[in-house]
Amino acid sequence: MSNHEFYMDLALNNARTMKGQTDPNPLVGSVIVNDNRIVGIGAHLKAGEPHAEIHALRMAGDAARGGTIYVTLEPCSHHGRTGPCAAAIVEAGLKKVVIATLDPNPIVAGNGVKMLEEAGIEVVVGIREEESKKMNEVFNKYIVTQLPFVTLKAAATLDGKIASHTLDSKWITSEEARHDVHMLRSENRAILVGVGTVIADDPELTSRIPNGRNPIRVVLDSTLRIPLDAKLATDGLAETWIFTSKQYDQGKRLALEALGIKVFETGGETRVDVRDVVRVLGEHSISSLFIEGGGTINAAFLENDLIDKVVLYFAPKLIGGKNAPTFLEGSGFDLMKEAVELEDGEFFKMGKDFKFTGYPVKKGV
Amino acid sequence: MSNHEFYMDLALNNARTMKGQTDPNPLVGSVIVNDNRIVGIGAHLKAGEPHAEIHALRMAGDAARGGTIYVTLEPCSHHGRTGPCAAAIVEAGLKKVVIATLDPNPIVAGNGVKMLEEAGIEVVVGIREEESKKMNEVFNKYIVTQLPFVTLKAAATLDGKIASHTLDSKWITSEEARHDVHMLRSENRAILVGVGTVIADDPELTSRIPNGRNPIRVVLDSTLRIPLDAKLATDGLAETWIFTSKQYDQGKRLALEALGIKVFETGGETRVDVRDVVRVLGEHSISSLFIEGGGTINAAFLENDLIDKVVLYFAPKLIGGKNAPTFLEGSGFDLMKEAVELEDGEFFKMGKDFKFTGYPVKKGV
Repeated sequence: MSNHEFYMDLALNNARTMKGQTDPNPLVGSVIVNDNRIVGIGAHLKAGEPHAEIHALRMAGDAARGGTIYVTLEPCSHHGRTGPCAAAIVEAGLKKVVIATLDPNPIVAGNGVKMLEEAGIEVVVGIREEESKKMNEVFNKYIVTQLPFVTLKAAATLDGKIASHTLDSKWITSEEARHDVHMLRSENRAILVGVGTVIADDPELTSRIPNGRNPIRVVLDSTLRIPLDAKLATDGLAETWIFTSKQYDQGKRLALEALGIKVFETGGETRVDVRDVVRVLGEHSISSLFIEGGGTINAAFLENDLIDKVVLYFAPKLIGGKNAPTFLEGSGFDLMKEAVELEDGEFFKMGKDFKFTGYPVKKGV
Repeated sequence: MSNHEFYMDLALNNARTMKGQTDPNPLVGSVIVNDNRIVGIGAHLKAGEPHAEIHALRMAGDAARGGTIYVTLEPCSHHGRTGPCAAAIVEAGLKKVVIATLDPNPIVAGNGVKMLEEAGIEVVVGIREEESKKMNEVFNKYIVTQLPFVTLKAAATLDGKIASHTLDSKWITSEEARHDVHMLRSENRAILVGVGTVIADDPELTSRIPNGRNPIRVVLDSTLRIPLDAKLATDGLAETWIFTSKQYDQGKRLALEALGIKVFETGGETRVDVRDVVRVLGEHSISSLFIEGGGTINAAFLENDLIDKVVLYFAPKLIGGKNAPTFLEGSGFDLMKEAVELEDGEFFKMGKDFKFTGYPVKKGV
């Protein structure tokens, strides 16, 4: 590991510490080194407050002059809620800037580097690039596409079942895995289920962890079958948005809207068009969507190439059953070679269970 | 880690080196230490040849006197094809014997320790006990029950599917995982499939690795539908045994037997009784059985509490399909709390894929 990687790892750690509190801004960390000594560290703490580089520069003071600044994201070149960081770096007399990755934000995207180089500062880009990109995977997608980063979550037995053939599902996974789900709910801006889940379980879909932030609850409901006394319709714990098809019932819509629920009609004739759902959520500034649907909903999103990340919790159990539901149904792909490949797949032990994360390779449908 | 564990690990490593060549005997390793110096090492190499302790004692010669011998399995007390090792240890003048685990073989089972203690030798039992037991999991079951150690194997997508809804399955996993399957075939005395697999794929079910040993091919075939020109019936690469139900066709049986195939009638009226299959295999000295069946066969073994170990290969892929087969079908258990729990579950990375191993907790049905 070179010095560059060592210091960039410190900057990444500083950045990650602020997970969940910088939204809608990305996580960014910074370290300033001069004469083999760390003279300043910083992280972006909260939207509207100084960027990571500014905190580090302030800490370093005069000691920054002639030094090297490490920053996990390209310094900004634009006047946002704070002045451009690239200009502050030039002014502080830094000799070198080491950057993990360019800012995908179209209004920066290389302009920060350009501003630094034009001032005669040496710039190195690409140290721990993958780590930095992964840390801001939600931001990186949304800032470029204006579409939410979509995570598919399922909890299953090792044979892929999410319930027994009698539809009993309590409980598949252990307390640790269920706690992790509540953490992910808190990190996502919206959570999505099908109306079948609402009718069967009457869930709250809240984040039951200390300081958890409840996501907007999104229900796919092609005919507006949701009961008017469902918790999602009445508990007021978070907003509830319903996406429906063209065949919805107008009277039911008015009744739901009277309860403060937003109802969106999608282009689907008899089923909800999931592409419209994702597009509309993006238009409403929803940068992240957490899908906790059943096998039919999950398959609709997967087959439409809409899943960015997959999070699976596997209990070390086998239940069997030709008719027991799996977390991915629909018609499925015809041939094994058409299956969606998952990149960067990893298994972690989580309590008694196992957590898998991976990233679907987009097929470009 | 104490000295005891350090030396026992060496003995375990010596033992494991002989994997696949000691059958039907267990793997055993030994290390002799005197005056903080290793003076002898040994392992059991082959049935009929000296036990691990004897090799180590021979290497140590006079240096064994007053020393400590580490052995991964209780020294034997009976006159088998070789003299009792416990007696040889006494004769060599060892002061202490450290044993990983007692020999489950009913004709030893503590008698070795007794013989040593009666000779005034200090005996320590239980150092690295779990490791030693796991190393000989097949032997340990068979020697006590006369039933084969049954391993269920499946290769699936992450959503538990073993084929697409069109029944396409080539290929789910990568070369590395398929190589591992051939290793396991070589380690098992018998491999089992359903006749459906034979009709659909006409497989050889051999171990295609260098020096691989082909298992006996066992087919469950309730009405003797197996084609007379199937590779399993004609290729002569290994024996083929067919288990059938009471409704089998007598003429077909004679035709199969004329090809050198053994046919066993089980107690099942219209389906093969899998409990009979396991019992009969044990009676024929088959100590290990590797099941590569489909979801129906796998479920029959699981529901009858017959599985000792589960080996799953998961490709990081999602295929979906309500009608795509999973590796565990049948009727399945009614409630999630009735699912079979797997102990000591572990995931390993294997090429692009993941390998899971775990041990079903027996329900005692």
